[in-house]
Amino acid sequence: MKLEILSVQHLPEIRFGMNLGQSLLDAMRLSGIELESRDIVAVTQKIVSKAEGRVLQLDTVEPSAQSAAIALRMKKDPRLIEVILRESKRIVRMRGEVLICETHHGLICANAGVDQSNVEGMDAVTLLPKDPDRSARDLARILGCGIILTDTFGRVWREGLVDVAIGIARVPLFIDFRGKHDTYGHPLNVTVLAAADSLAAAAGLVMGKTSRTPAALIRGFPWEESESNTAALLRAPEKDLFL
Amino acid sequence: MKLEILSVQHLPEIRFGMNLGQSLLDAMRLSGIELESRDIVAVTQKIVSKAEGRVLQLDTVEPSAQSAAIALRMKKDPRLIEVILRESKRIVRMRGEVLICETHHGLICANAGVDQSNVEGMDAVTLLPKDPDRSARDLARILGCGIILTDTFGRVWREGLVDVAIGIARVPLFIDFRGKHDTYGHPLNVTVLAAADSLAAAAGLVMGKTSRTPAALIRGFPWEESESNTAALLRAPEKDLFL
Repeated sequence: MKLEILSVQHLPEIRFGMNLGQSLLDAMRLSGIELESRDIVAVTQKIVSKAEGRVLQLDTVEPSAQSAAIALRMKKDPRLIEVILRESKRIVRMRGEVLICETHHGLICANAGVDQSNVEGMDAVTLLPKDPDRSARDLARILGCGIILTDTFGRVWREGLVDVAIGIARVPLFIDFRGKHDTYGHPLNVTVLAAADSLAAAAGLVMGKTSRTPAALIRGFPWEESESNTAALLRAPEKDLFL
Repeated sequence: MKLEILSVQHLPEIRFGMNLGQSLLDAMRLSGIELESRDIVAVTQKIVSKAEGRVLQLDTVEPSAQSAAIALRMKKDPRLIEVILRESKRIVRMRGEVLICETHHGLICANAGVDQSNVEGMDAVTLLPKDPDRSARDLARILGCGIILTDTFGRVWREGLVDVAIGIARVPLFIDFRGKHDTYGHPLNVTVLAAADSLAAAAGLVMGKTSRTPAALIRGFPWEESESNTAALLRAPEKDLFL
């Protein structure tokens, strides 16, 4: 098997109201790439959020007393804390300068995905898309291929960040080896590979954080169309053997 | 940037005492691949363990009273539990059928990496290499390229397994964006990308669990030679904001 992962060049600066799918198609054309139905395009959350207008100016935000108290304790902007709390279902951890939240989608990540980098204006922040799977499906319809929306998350027990899938269309989330046997005929212990997260991590290697390449093309990965919903990636706390 | 990830074909069945580096070189030659110094070869823990003789026949194992008690509770083979405990510094979680351990290397994973799949004989298990970084360095010397030893781990909060780096040679563990700025001149929030783990996850996509392709070639990823040690990937529990 041979996988190719390309960073997508020639994307314009994405702004609210732009047709991101069309911009991606144009960028592919300018790059001489002919999209195929079995291609997967990985797109960072950031440009999807911008296209969907999920950008907030902090000077429009009125912090609550709770946000102000947390901000004081964490030495952060109370307006930023207010936005993070609005995006959160619950605070999972709060220590030092880091706030780990469960977003309304059920994602567990730093600052509920609220991010100040790569946004115009010092006082602007991006929020995660409201429904990342719907965003992915919209892009899949326009591009005619598989789509993975990615974001960059920290992990438990291991240093450094990796890109994971926060939205998906057509591509399966998992490759299920259950019921299969190894070359010796034993049932396999490694049962369910998180394919979408692995693809997101792979794409993260070519999507520079400083350069303007917020999309990647993945070609050569065999997959069958599936009705994926990233909710299935999120493990219920009571099922989490690692916690 | 364009990344290519190929599964390495033509590897023989790896057994104790074989020169795995030479087997990999032969497989590359048979595949028509000319290795370059900036290539990265990802190798699953399983074949490294086999080459190094880290395979144990369970009928040689005498379970302790503690292992027998845990085995009874977990409905597992007491000899398997005995091996897992010998490979562990501590038990992190024990629930249902899953035992999460910290290995002597400091890795946190199911069953301390002791695995029954893809080993000859129903009663044989593989253990993780004693010093995966040394194993990686040995291979790097023979192959003349970067090496990542991989294993397949579960994660907290997210379903499914991904391949991670458990040993490394030459390749850096992280890409550090600290001190860098985004295209708008703001300091970047996403600071340290876990490159080695992302590369391992990418390689995991082409290394079939059922087929005999326990190695992958990664070409096109820009990296500078570094004295990596996977210990730096392991986050100290007291620093773990996610826990």
